[in-house]
Amino acid sequence: MSISFREEIRNLKAYEPGKPIEDVKKEYGLQQVIKLASNENPLGCSPKVREAIVNAVNELGIYPDGNCTELKEALASIHQINVNEVLPSSGSDEMIDTIAKAYINKDDEIIMADITFPRYIQTTEMMGGTPVIVPLKEFTFDLDGILSKITDKTKIIWICNPNNPTGTMITEKEFVDFLDKIPSNVLVISDEAYREYVTRDDYPHNTVKLLKDYPNLLVMRTFSKAYGLAGIRVAYTIGHKDIIETINKVRGPFNVNTLAQVAAIKALEDKEFLEKSYNLNLEGKNYLYSEFDKLGFYYPPSETNHIFVNVGKNGQEVFIEMQKRGVIIRPMGGDFIRVSIGTMDENRLFIEKLKEVID
Amino acid sequence: MSISFREEIRNLKAYEPGKPIEDVKKEYGLQQVIKLASNENPLGCSPKVREAIVNAVNELGIYPDGNCTELKEALASIHQINVNEVLPSSGSDEMIDTIAKAYINKDDEIIMADITFPRYIQTTEMMGGTPVIVPLKEFTFDLDGILSKITDKTKIIWICNPNNPTGTMITEKEFVDFLDKIPSNVLVISDEAYREYVTRDDYPHNTVKLLKDYPNLLVMRTFSKAYGLAGIRVAYTIGHKDIIETINKVRGPFNVNTLAQVAAIKALEDKEFLEKSYNLNLEGKNYLYSEFDKLGFYYPPSETNHIFVNVGKNGQEVFIEMQKRGVIIRPMGGDFIRVSIGTMDENRLFIEKLKEVID
Repeated sequence: MSISFREEIRNLKAYEPGKPIEDVKKEYGLQQVIKLASNENPLGCSPKVREAIVNAVNELGIYPDGNCTELKEALASIHQINVNEVLPSSGSDEMIDTIAKAYINKDDEIIMADITFPRYIQTTEMMGGTPVIVPLKEFTFDLDGILSKITDKTKIIWICNPNNPTGTMITEKEFVDFLDKIPSNVLVISDEAYREYVTRDDYPHNTVKLLKDYPNLLVMRTFSKAYGLAGIRVAYTIGHKDIIETINKVRGPFNVNTLAQVAAIKALEDKEFLEKSYNLNLEGKNYLYSEFDKLGFYYPPSETNHIFVNVGKNGQEVFIEMQKRGVIIRPMGGDFIRVSIGTMDENRLFIEKLKEVID
Repeated sequence: MSISFREEIRNLKAYEPGKPIEDVKKEYGLQQVIKLASNENPLGCSPKVREAIVNAVNELGIYPDGNCTELKEALASIHQINVNEVLPSSGSDEMIDTIAKAYINKDDEIIMADITFPRYIQTTEMMGGTPVIVPLKEFTFDLDGILSKITDKTKIIWICNPNNPTGTMITEKEFVDFLDKIPSNVLVISDEAYREYVTRDDYPHNTVKLLKDYPNLLVMRTFSKAYGLAGIRVAYTIGHKDIIETINKVRGPFNVNTLAQVAAIKALEDKEFLEKSYNLNLEGKNYLYSEFDKLGFYYPPSETNHIFVNVGKNGQEVFIEMQKRGVIIRPMGGDFIRVSIGTMDENRLFIEKLKEVID
């Protein structure tokens, strides 16, 4: 092929999807397969959201509202901000890509952790930026380490709080002290995909209120996790109106589909569903903790809907053996795996099969 | 705001959405407002597609199949290609953006027409490429003019066939002759968003078969127009496997939502709906032609679901006056407007109001 692509993307890797459940069933002749690999809500989404989607299905011939007018109004009202301080996106994935296109010049330095959400590094490389990797310290963000890496070239710092895949968090005090030390020309992005699952009081539960003191902060949230809407692609970002306006210039004109807008608006209203999701997750987490404790497995405490756990055996091998038994989890480096917290039945089945595999 | 964005995006303009129908109703105190401004299918989508979406609404808790496995298989089967030669996207908008990120280096020259679909120039500028604009000739692509602009820096040539907004087309013979003269390191993209509405036999109805001779060709198609799925965001692109693989590296991991995948697969099956949409469009087009003829209005013959017509009065003024009367159309330069072909009732209402406005 003689058409030359951009050198920046040479080493990017195409997304490698996990095997669909149906394929795993066929391959191993299994009746039942459960997937605890993608940090999804085992309850799905609110029944009220499903109803709203079904009611909107006659509107698909026309383009989505490119401005997400009603969704922005709902979010602005909840967060007590103006509509020009919020921007919905097609999942956080699309927002991370859009931010990269808006801000990352060749050779700009983008600071992020290792391990954290992989889209930060991929979009940095795509735009020719330089990823500056600061290893986690005791499985959580090393904020002093990050501060020590700031240079004149630093453009963005990615903070995933709580962090995927380790489930760890930084406190409000730690975060504010950190923000105090960041130069005002550096964008700090707080990716709070798992915030609805946090149990600790000292988590920065309301980062939106920090925006007036830290206009270089962006707050990113999603409907893919606790709201159970991973399949329909919708998230949103809150920040200073100038930053939102800049990102808005770069996004696609109809980036959030009609049903995603309808679903998100309705999801925001159903607080009961969110509470149910939180409680189920907490029950599952406590159960898995107690089982891991009995097995003598180390795990950092998780403030998310997944646990990063050392199972004392190579994660890749465990992944394959578990898959053969109808349970899909995510292998991590070394002896670590990441398991998403499922329904109680799924959690019990996971533990049952895990005991077989590590035996 | 002291955070500096990329210089390339300084002059990009945020998408300015048209007024929602509800807002127009309120503003002018109207009971009924029709929108013939966005080239949408007035029939919406197939009832079978709606049913498939409703049946999939319980799957939204889990992420979409990032590989679009079933949709790719359906498309590969229809087009008699391999699954690695096709890539679905979240509308053509997202694909145009992804191609730009994969291929456009700073100062690469990207050739396109004027007037044509505006995303080509926006994504070129976003990546720092140089748009090379070749004016339309008699409202259609000036292929000789384009050939004369090819240099060592040319990376992509955008051909919208039939063209939005003029509705004009180039023939298969013209296109093949053109491809014969394009250097093999230049990507030619045939954006065929309106192909399902084409009535002429000499249109290149099967550009996919040209790929074996022209591996530098990409064929882009959408479900937003004749399939009536603008609201759910799904399109696809067919090309040489190396190009598809390159684009695939740059796209987001879950770019096509679950309901969009389900809808597209079902839409491909319902040929009857497509025929009905074609026939309704043809009836509307012939009616509008005859009314325009009576009014003495010039229009280039349209092979799409919209007509680019000179109404002998400033398009912007006509747009505003029509809106007051409950009909939204698109103003173009000078005395031109673009009107989407609606249901026969909508077409008649449009003509009735247009006569008032130009009187």
